[in-house]
Amino acid sequence: MPLPPEFHEIAKRVNNWGRWGESDEIGTLNLITDAVVREAVATVRAGRRVALAVPLRQRGIQTGLIPGRVNPLHTMTSVNREEFAPGSVATSDDTVTMGLQAGTHWDALPHVSHGGRIYNGRPADSITAHARAVFSGVEKARHVVSRGVLLDVARARGVDRLTPGRAVTPEDLEAAEDMGAVSVGPGDVVVVRTGHMQRYLAGDRRAYGSASPGLSIRTPEWFHARDVAAVANDTLCFEVFPPEIDGLWLPVHALHLVEMGMMQGQNWNLEELSAACAEEGRYAFLLAATPEPFEGAVGAPVAPVAVL
Amino acid sequence: MPLPPEFHEIAKRVNNWGRWGESDEIGTLNLITDAVVREAVATVRAGRRVALAVPLRQRGIQTGLIPGRVNPLHTMTSVNREEFAPGSVATSDDTVTMGLQAGTHWDALPHVSHGGRIYNGRPADSITAHARAVFSGVEKARHVVSRGVLLDVARARGVDRLTPGRAVTPEDLEAAEDMGAVSVGPGDVVVVRTGHMQRYLAGDRRAYGSASPGLSIRTPEWFHARDVAAVANDTLCFEVFPPEIDGLWLPVHALHLVEMGMMQGQNWNLEELSAACAEEGRYAFLLAATPEPFEGAVGAPVAPVAVL
Amino acid sequence: MPLPPEFHEIAKRVNNWGRWGESDEIGTLNLITDAVVREAVATVRAGRRVALAVPLRQRGIQTGLIPGRVNPLHTMTSVNREEFAPGSVATSDDTVTMGLQAGTHWDALPHVSHGGRIYNGRPADSITAHARAVFSGVEKARHVVSRGVLLDVARARGVDRLTPGRAVTPEDLEAAEDMGAVSVGPGDVVVVRTGHMQRYLAGDRRAYGSASPGLSIRTPEWFHARDVAAVANDTLCFEVFPPEIDGLWLPVHALHLVEMGMMQGQNWNLEELSAACAEEGRYAFLLAATPEPFEGAVGAPVAPVAVL
Amino acid sequence: MPLPPEFHEIAKRVNNWGRWGESDEIGTLNLITDAVVREAVATVRAGRRVALAVPLRQRGIQTGLIPGRVNPLHTMTSVNREEFAPGSVATSDDTVTMGLQAGTHWDALPHVSHGGRIYNGRPADSITAHARAVFSGVEKARHVVSRGVLLDVARARGVDRLTPGRAVTPEDLEAAEDMGAVSVGPGDVVVVRTGHMQRYLAGDRRAYGSASPGLSIRTPEWFHARDVAAVANDTLCFEVFPPEIDGLWLPVHALHLVEMGMMQGQNWNLEELSAACAEEGRYAFLLAATPEPFEGAVGAPVAPVAVL
Repeated sequence: MPLPPEFHEIAKRVNNWGRWGESDEIGTLNLITDAVVREAVATVRAGRRVALAVPLRQRGIQTGLIPGRVNPLHTMTSVNREEFAPGSVATSDDTVTMGLQAGTHWDALPHVSHGGRIYNGRPADSITAHARAVFSGVEKARHVVSRGVLLDVARARGVDRLTPGRAVTPEDLEAAEDMGAVSVGPGDVVVVRTGHMQRYLAGDRRAYGSASPGLSIRTPEWFHARDVAAVANDTLCFEVFPPEIDGLWLPVHALHLVEMGMMQGQNWNLEELSAACAEEGRYAFLLAATPEPFEGAVGAPVAPVAVL
Repeated sequence: MPLPPEFHEIAKRVNNWGRWGESDEIGTLNLITDAVVREAVATVRAGRRVALAVPLRQRGIQTGLIPGRVNPLHTMTSVNREEFAPGSVATSDDTVTMGLQAGTHWDALPHVSHGGRIYNGRPADSITAHARAVFSGVEKARHVVSRGVLLDVARARGVDRLTPGRAVTPEDLEAAEDMGAVSVGPGDVVVVRTGHMQRYLAGDRRAYGSASPGLSIRTPEWFHARDVAAVANDTLCFEVFPPEIDGLWLPVHALHLVEMGMMQGQNWNLEELSAACAEEGRYAFLLAATPEPFEGAVGAPVAPVAVL
Repeated sequence: MPLPPEFHEIAKRVNNWGRWGESDEIGTLNLITDAVVREAVATVRAGRRVALAVPLRQRGIQTGLIPGRVNPLHTMTSVNREEFAPGSVATSDDTVTMGLQAGTHWDALPHVSHGGRIYNGRPADSITAHARAVFSGVEKARHVVSRGVLLDVARARGVDRLTPGRAVTPEDLEAAEDMGAVSVGPGDVVVVRTGHMQRYLAGDRRAYGSASPGLSIRTPEWFHARDVAAVANDTLCFEVFPPEIDGLWLPVHALHLVEMGMMQGQNWNLEELSAACAEEGRYAFLLAATPEPFEGAVGAPVAPVAVL
Repeated sequence: MPLPPEFHEIAKRVNNWGRWGESDEIGTLNLITDAVVREAVATVRAGRRVALAVPLRQRGIQTGLIPGRVNPLHTMTSVNREEFAPGSVATSDDTVTMGLQAGTHWDALPHVSHGGRIYNGRPADSITAHARAVFSGVEKARHVVSRGVLLDVARARGVDRLTPGRAVTPEDLEAAEDMGAVSVGPGDVVVVRTGHMQRYLAGDRRAYGSASPGLSIRTPEWFHARDVAAVANDTLCFEVFPPEIDGLWLPVHALHLVEMGMMQGQNWNLEELSAACAEEGRYAFLLAATPEPFEGAVGAPVAPVAVL
């Protein structure tokens, strides 16, 4: 099934191909200028830090629905090994196997394609099994430090969490701006809270991993208008699931990653941040969220920290 | 061979067991207070960001000398898969297997033990193959954001890089402080540049991975006196190799991790940071360096970013 | 809870420590003599081959109940890569991560211990994270080719499959001998069919992996009396589950692996073999079932083939 | 560079596409009939077993030259874990990550392609990162048990081992037949000994993995004329390396795997077999060499055993 006309119309309006040159590989991260970072730093008042990553473990977020996206298998390759001199200093070492999008992660730009193209019009078949993503691999996002803005939609709408299947709309985002007395602007990294992560934190992985609230197909234009650098939320799918338009899968992914060249974050734990922002009465902060630089990867784990 | 008396004497002087309570699992990270973070933020002038991680790849830092510490094996589990609807949005996904200390990483506190103990007097045999590190696993270091200070010893000593086997002494650290017009204080994360990373960047993995400059057994007392939160450098072994005292392996590891409860970072790329600090004329900055939260891990990759 | 007296009494009667010398690492595989192999070969009439392995795949036998025993994650590291000359010969390559006991496998002798001992009285703590199993690792079983005997208990008892929790007793084994007109003897590799594998083959992994029929604590003495070389069956747990004696876990494992030094096979698909033996009217055959020689491993995948 | 005319001429002569039907996925394994297996069994005299696999270990055959083909990383996920009842039976468990062609292995038919085709004219692009090899994956070779014939070329030519770069020709194969008083026929699995494995066994992995003796481009026609079922040898590359015709890479792979549909084995240890055959004065035997059934894999480890 080809993508419907409404998708292509939005795509035209938000497309950033060529905006930062033909050879650009990082898209909207270009919007994080030194000036934006200085503003980000200026938001810090308390020095309070909030971690947004879910711990990586074998009984983690994945349930087996997405083939190959395996939870971390962490194994010890040595345990108190006295390799040098018995009775002296002993060492322990470890290793991991995991899907790069298994936990709290960023989607890199080549994570999706459509019409044979990835961001900036590069050919999708530049991604291969052996070379992996030669353009816009996640390691190209060398540093992601900017102003973070929490749009706490669940709180703004007065609920613990949005219901599965509930699409987060531009109106929701603006309601959250109003509640937080904050205005999203160029270079911001926006984190959108639905509260859905509570399902995982309560131990119900299946409820977390199936139908969920998420971003509406109408939001990419809103992010584009605000010149946002990146967006993350607290769900597995990022966009609303099941999809808003029957049979149209992952349109938000395609608009953000391919058309806009904007990274997306998933499985971020925004519960503690929600409480901290409410307590501090501030919804803008310094956000440090650099992905692990796996060469040629289409996604990577990240351990984001907000500093309020 | 038991540890020599001089080790035990230093150990007594730098020991932090019980300092933050019997149940503490993060050691000197406790020194990063909200006030320290506010000071860290206040160091930022330009908004300039510098990435300190080496890209993660199969032809990476490891040469096979350390059993089990394998370079990242990154594989695609799907490439432009049109899983939902042919002709529509296609997805790519990937996975990795790697030693957690293979690239730019933090050693967590239980990475080494001596005398059957890890940090805070916990039993070393609490680390097991199946439960892994139940105390002080790297996921306990939930956020590492503080003031970073570059002690550019190579530059202070007027060389491109220190020679293999050259021990970095307290005098070297103070020479670097003087050159940088900076003073290391409580809660700082200190990054010590030897220049040795140039060997890896030039493609000579074997030279990088064998004899190298590194921290002297005399430096832990210096870091302890300054109440530093963590220390990282640009070598594989962190401490000088071969060791200063014949047959005494990894004493600095044991003093930092076990006695002080202080994380160590290795394989950090400090070349660009060295140039940036020299250009800016400032050697203190905001440093974001939170490890990936692998539950029960004795080390973890990190993608540190300095903001000047 | 210490092991009960009845366990220790059986243990005494079946113990083989020292039987093949103090340095022996293969236990009852010593019973497969050249003469036994010649007899095994002499059983072949038709030349008909039957494979007994379940295909290795990500949606395989494991359901996550056993931590770390992950189903195979098979990934391509190249797909039709024209690495040498474009337009010429292209290559594809692949890799796997898996629990060694995830599919059709042999338990090696050190897979279990009790009282701090593994087979032949060796210390259990000779198994370490870094050296792995230095005694009796699965690679010591260099060749497993012998006479195979199918004891088709389900067929002998006139049922499709034994019910979960049903213990297979010596009487069951003898009923199967009678039905098959076959007599188990020294050096034989016995495969015991319960029919439980049908649950997995029908797609019900959870039913397969939970309560199941399996060998009774009374069978090790029977196998010992017959001087069997190894035993395999078509269940996940091998022995009956839940256990026959409340709170006594894995006694058959301990008796076979530790006391007798006899390898056990699990997750063998015996359905086609059952049909073939019935058609041929013969229940003895040549069996080739050499484990993959992973050095220091406590288990290994095997692709057994019966030749009738 | 396209494949040269001489390749295409040989390809035409040895092509087996359609020979066993359009839907066939196992090629020359069809030649192993029940009658062949009966003959194979009839070769056994002594009951003597010889293992042909190299132990799988981290310091194994691979040196890093072939990207992604990593040596086995074997880790313990539990060590003497008393998971059920303290003081009772303890279990150890393990896991592995490895390239499927890292050790002693079979190449499955889709391991190479040319002109966009794999065996039986199937499209090469049927191999994908997520579905892997849907045609002729190694799991389709459900049982490989047949008559094995050792062609001990090194011994026939009176040398310990053939020199690197030495192509094994049809004349060499016939000299080995003569020496062994054996005649290769339909359904046989031929193992060709060059002696090159001695380099690996002596600890020189680099010498083993670089230039080596191996099969000449002239041998596929010989194997085709004899209607051989499969061929294996004791080198990393299987065919002579560097190649006989400048710039023509892997022609023997392409002829065997794509045109003939014949599996190839590499890294087989034939040293002990060479001695055994010489002692027994017999070069034909029963060979059991079933690959591990990884679904959709283009290669798989095998633990072959010869029974003389």
